[in-house]
Amino acid sequence: MTLKVYLSGEIHTDWREEIIAGCAGLDMAFSAPVTDHAASDDCGVAILGPEDSKFWHDHKGAKLNAIRTRRSIEQADVVVVRFGEKYKQWNAAFDAGMAAALGKSLIVLHGAEHQHALKEVDAAALAVAERPEQVAQMLRYVLEGRLPG
Amino acid sequence: MTLKVYLSGEIHTDWREEIIAGCAGLDMAFSAPVTDHAASDDCGVAILGPEDSKFWHDHKGAKLNAIRTRRSIEQADVVVVRFGEKYKQWNAAFDAGMAAALGKSLIVLHGAEHQHALKEVDAAALAVAERPEQVAQMLRYVLEGRLPG
Amino acid sequence: MTLKVYLSGEIHTDWREEIIAGCAGLDMAFSAPVTDHAASDDCGVAILGPEDSKFWHDHKGAKLNAIRTRRSIEQADVVVVRFGEKYKQWNAAFDAGMAAALGKSLIVLHGAEHQHALKEVDAAALAVAERPEQVAQMLRYVLEGRLPG
Amino acid sequence: MTLKVYLSGEIHTDWREEIIAGCAGLDMAFSAPVTDHAASDDCGVAILGPEDSKFWHDHKGAKLNAIRTRRSIEQADVVVVRFGEKYKQWNAAFDAGMAAALGKSLIVLHGAEHQHALKEVDAAALAVAERPEQVAQMLRYVLEGRLPG
Amino acid sequence: MTLKVYLSGEIHTDWREEIIAGCAGLDMAFSAPVTDHAASDDCGVAILGPEDSKFWHDHKGAKLNAIRTRRSIEQADVVVVRFGEKYKQWNAAFDAGMAAALGKSLIVLHGAEHQHALKEVDAAALAVAERPEQVAQMLRYVLEGRLPG
Amino acid sequence: MTLKVYLSGEIHTDWREEIIAGCAGLDMAFSAPVTDHAASDDCGVAILGPEDSKFWHDHKGAKLNAIRTRRSIEQADVVVVRFGEKYKQWNAAFDAGMAAALGKSLIVLHGAEHQHALKEVDAAALAVAERPEQVAQMLRYVLEGRLPG
Amino acid sequence: MTLKVYLSGEIHTDWREEIIAGCAGLDMAFSAPVTDHAASDDCGVAILGPEDSKFWHDHKGAKLNAIRTRRSIEQADVVVVRFGEKYKQWNAAFDAGMAAALGKSLIVLHGAEHQHALKEVDAAALAVAERPEQVAQMLRYVLEGRLPG
Amino acid sequence: MTLKVYLSGEIHTDWREEIIAGCAGLDMAFSAPVTDHAASDDCGVAILGPEDSKFWHDHKGAKLNAIRTRRSIEQADVVVVRFGEKYKQWNAAFDAGMAAALGKSLIVLHGAEHQHALKEVDAAALAVAERPEQVAQMLRYVLEGRLPG
Repeated sequence: MTLKVYLSGEIHTDWREEIIAGCAGLDMAFSAPVTDHAASDDCGVAILGPEDSKFWHDHKGAKLNAIRTRRSIEQADVVVVRFGEKYKQWNAAFDAGMAAALGKSLIVLHGAEHQHALKEVDAAALAVAERPEQVAQMLRYVLEGRLPG
Repeated sequence: MTLKVYLSGEIHTDWREEIIAGCAGLDMAFSAPVTDHAASDDCGVAILGPEDSKFWHDHKGAKLNAIRTRRSIEQADVVVVRFGEKYKQWNAAFDAGMAAALGKSLIVLHGAEHQHALKEVDAAALAVAERPEQVAQMLRYVLEGRLPG
Repeated sequence: MTLKVYLSGEIHTDWREEIIAGCAGLDMAFSAPVTDHAASDDCGVAILGPEDSKFWHDHKGAKLNAIRTRRSIEQADVVVVRFGEKYKQWNAAFDAGMAAALGKSLIVLHGAEHQHALKEVDAAALAVAERPEQVAQMLRYVLEGRLPG
Repeated sequence: MTLKVYLSGEIHTDWREEIIAGCAGLDMAFSAPVTDHAASDDCGVAILGPEDSKFWHDHKGAKLNAIRTRRSIEQADVVVVRFGEKYKQWNAAFDAGMAAALGKSLIVLHGAEHQHALKEVDAAALAVAERPEQVAQMLRYVLEGRLPG
Repeated sequence: MTLKVYLSGEIHTDWREEIIAGCAGLDMAFSAPVTDHAASDDCGVAILGPEDSKFWHDHKGAKLNAIRTRRSIEQADVVVVRFGEKYKQWNAAFDAGMAAALGKSLIVLHGAEHQHALKEVDAAALAVAERPEQVAQMLRYVLEGRLPG
Repeated sequence: MTLKVYLSGEIHTDWREEIIAGCAGLDMAFSAPVTDHAASDDCGVAILGPEDSKFWHDHKGAKLNAIRTRRSIEQADVVVVRFGEKYKQWNAAFDAGMAAALGKSLIVLHGAEHQHALKEVDAAALAVAERPEQVAQMLRYVLEGRLPG
Repeated sequence: MTLKVYLSGEIHTDWREEIIAGCAGLDMAFSAPVTDHAASDDCGVAILGPEDSKFWHDHKGAKLNAIRTRRSIEQADVVVVRFGEKYKQWNAAFDAGMAAALGKSLIVLHGAEHQHALKEVDAAALAVAERPEQVAQMLRYVLEGRLPG
Repeated sequence: MTLKVYLSGEIHTDWREEIIAGCAGLDMAFSAPVTDHAASDDCGVAILGPEDSKFWHDHKGAKLNAIRTRRSIEQADVVVVRFGEKYKQWNAAFDAGMAAALGKSLIVLHGAEHQHALKEVDAAALAVAERPEQVAQMLRYVLEGRLPG
C-alpha cells in the first residue's frame, strides 16, 4: 500500500523537493503545509474578511491552515519534521507533538546545532537525520528493504 | 471532581507558584515537569550510566523525563503551556501538540512579542493569556463559575 | 460507583434543582454549565481583556466555557439536555451531539411543542421526558432498580 | 487523497450546489443528508409501516436518516454546517456537536443575525463563514494552497 | 463511497440473496459469515487437526470463523442481523452486541413472534424490520435518498 | 485496585448471590442489571407514560435499562454472562458481544447442554464455567493468585 | 475487500513464500519485515552514521525497522507470527503482543516443541498451526468459505 | 496521583521485591502476574476441570492468567519487563508488545548478554536498565524529581 508521508516544518529551503526526488519511482504520497508564506499568513482574512487586530488576523489564518495540517498528519504513516536554522518554528514542534500523540512514525530532520534544544522531540522520534538525502534513503528502505549504495 | 492541571513549559520564573497560589482553596491537583534544570538534563546518565556522545546523553534523559511528562498530559483536564522570553522552548510546543491531539483543554501563556510565532499553537488553544494571574482566574471560573473582582 | 450526571441546556428555570432534589440521598454527582448568564457571556473579556468586535467578545467567552462544558460531558455517565420554551438553544443541541458521539447515555427533556423539531436529537437519546421529575425517577431507577410509587 | 466534505444543515436554499460548483475540478467528494423534505420526514413509516403516534412516526424516520448522517460525518474530513434564517435547526447544531466530538474540521456557515446564538458552535469551528462562496474558497485553499483572485 | 453491509445471523433461508437482489445496481458491498453449515462447524478440525472433545472441536472452528466475522463487522457501515424462527441464534445476538459497541448502524430483522425476547437488541438498532424487502428499501434510501414506489 | 465485575444474564436463580458470597472479603465491586423482572419490563412506561403498542412499551423500557447495563459493562474489568436453562436470553448474548468488542475479560457460565449453541460466545471468552462456584474461584485467583483447596 | 496479512517472525526458512504460494489467486496483500538479515541489522548506521556502542548501533536499526513493522501490523487484518527452531525470537513475541493489543486476528505458527513456552501467546490467538500450509488453508477459508480437499 | 507500575516477566529471582523496597514511602501501587509457578501453570484445570491434552491444559491456564495480566497492563502507568537469564520468556516480550501498543511507558530490565536479541523491545522502551536498583531510582525520579545520591 502507498506509504503516506507528511513533510512538516521549515518552508524556506527545498528540502521537500530533495526528499521527493530521492523517492522517485516508489509508491509514496507526499503532503505538506501550504509553503507559500504570504498565502499561509493571510489566507484567513483574504477569504473571511479583514481583522483590526493582528492576533485575530493570525488566528483566522492559523485555523484555516489547521484544516490542511491536521488532516495530513492524521492520514500520514510517517511524519517528517524539519527544523531549519532560523525562526522559532514552534509550529514544527507542535506538529511533532501531535504526530507523537497520534502514534505516527516520526522522523526529525535538523542540524547538529539544535541537538540539545530538540532533545525531547528527538526522543519521541524513530529516526533523527541531518540531511534530506538520509530521509529519502530511510523511506526507500522502509518500503523496499534495500540499503543505499 | 478534582480539576487536574498540567503546567508545562518555561522553568526559569515562578509562574507555576503564582498560578497555584491563585487557586488556593480550590479542588485542583497540579502537576509539572521536573523543574530542577540540572537534574532534568542529567537524569538519564546519572541513573543508567554515562554516554560518550552528547546526543545519547540527552536522549536517555529526555526519554526518562517523558515518562513523567506524558503521564501528566494524559491525566490532565487542562494543560497550560508557558512560553518565556528566552530559549527555543521546542519541548513546550511539543507538549502543546500532544495536548491538542489528545483533546485536552489547552491554555497558552506568553507575552505579546511571541504572538505571531505562536499563532498555530494559539489557534489550538481554548484561551491565550499574558499573565499567570489570568490563568488562575480562568481555572477558578471553570471550577466555580465566579468571575474575579 | 457514583453516577455522574451532566445537566446541559436551558438556564432560566429551576429544573436542575428539581432533579437534584429528586435524587437526594443517592450516590450521584451532578455537574452543569455556569448558569449565571452575565458571567457566562462576559467571562472571556473579563479575564483576558476586552474586544472591539462582538464576535471575538463572544468567542473568548464561549471557548473559556468550553473548558468546563467538555470536561463535564466527557466525565459524565449520563447527559441530560433540557430544551426550554424560548431561544435558539443551539448550544444545547450541540452538547447533545457531543454526548451522542462520545457514547454517553443521553436523556432529552422538552415539552411536546418541540417534538418534531427535536426528532433527530430524540432519536439519539435513551429516554425523552417532559418533566424534571421523570428524569429524577429514571436516575433513581438506574441506580437502585426501584420504580416510583 | 480525495477531500471528503459533509454538507449538513439547512435544506431550503441551494447553498450546497453553490459550494459544489465553486469546487469544480478539485479532488473532493461531497455528501449531504437527504434534502427531499417529505421523504426525509416520512421514510421510516413509508418503509417500516405506519405509527399512530407522531412521536414514533418521527422517531422511525429520524433513526433511518441517522444511518446516512452518521456515516457521512464519520467519513468526512470537513463538516460544513449551515444555519439558515428559519426554523429551530437543532439537527444542524447536533451534527456540529458530533463533528466536534469526533475531531472533524468544522466550518460553520450562517448570517450575522445568528452570531450570538451560535457562539458555542462557532467556538468549536476552524472557520465561520457568511457565504457559500467563502466555503468553496476555503476548501480550494485547503486542497491547493492557492488564494482566490 | 461504497456502502459496506454485513449480513449476520440466520443461514437457512435465502434472505441474504433477497436483500442483495433488492439492492442491484447500487454502490454496495455485502459480506456474510460462511453459510455452508457443515464447513462452518468443522473448519477448525478440518484444517488444524481433530479434537477428542466436542468443546474444543467447536472452539477451534468458532475461533477460525471469528477471523472472518469480526473483520466483516469492523469494516461494515451497516450490520443487519437476522433472527429466524428456529434455534438459539446466540451468535446473531452476539454479533449485534459487537456492532452496537463499535458504533455501527444496526438493523434487526425478525418476525413479530420474537418482539419481546429481542427488545434489548431492538433498542440498540436504528431500524427493526420484518421482511428482507424492507431492508433493501432502507439501504437504497440511505444511499440514494429515494423512497420505494 | 478494586476488581469490577458485571454479572449479566439469567435472573431467575441465585447465581449472583453465590458468586458474591464466594468472593466475600475480597476487594471487588459487583454490578448487575435490574433483576426485578416486572420492574425491568415496565420501567419505561411506568415513568415516561403508557404506550398502545407492545413494541414501544418494550422499547422504552429496554432503552432505560440500557443506561444501567452499558455503564456497568463499560466500567467492568470482568463481565460474567450466565445462560440459564430457559428462554431465548438474547440480551445475555448481546451483552457478551458488547463486552468482547470493548475488550473486557469475558467469563461465560452455562450448562453442558448449551455448549454447541454457545460456541461463538465461548470462543470470545477467557473462561467457560459450569457452576457459579468456579467463577468465584477464578475471581479470587485473579485477585490473590491463590488456588482453591 | 483485500485481506491484508502481515507475516511476522522467523526469517531463515521460506515459510512466507509457502503461504503466499498457497494463497495464489486470492484477493490478499501480504507484508513482512525486511528479511535480509544484514540489511535489517545495519540499516540504522548505514543511513544515519556509525555508532561506537553496539547498543546504539542496534537501537538505530531497530527503530528504523519499527517504521515498517508497526505500519504493517496496524494495517493488517490478520497477523501471522512464526516461531522457528532457533534464537530467542523476542521480536516475534513482541509483534504478537502488539497485534493482540490492537485487536488484530492473530495466528501463531510453531512446532510442538514450543507449545508450553508459547502458551500465553497461543492463548491470545484465533488459531495455532504447525505448518505454513495450514495457514494458507485458513486464509483461503476466511476469504472464500471453502475447506481444502 | 498514585503511580501504577506493572512488574512483568521473570519470576525466579526477587527483583520485584528489590524494586518495591527501593520505592518505599512513595505513592506507588505495584502489580504483578501470579508468581507461584505451579499455581500459574495449573490454575485453569484446577478450577475448570482437567484436560487430556497438554495444549488445552495450558490454554485454560494461560487464558485465566490473562484476566489478571491484561487488566494490570491496561491500568498501569509504567510497565517494567524483566528478562532473566533462562527460558524463552516469550510471555515477557508479549507483555512488552501489548504495553507498547497501548502507549504505556515501558522500562526493560535485562543483562548485557541479551542486548542484541532484545533490540526491538528496547527500541520501544523509554529506559533500558540492567539492575532493579536503577528501576527504583527511575520511578523515584519520575514521581519526585530527585536524583539518587
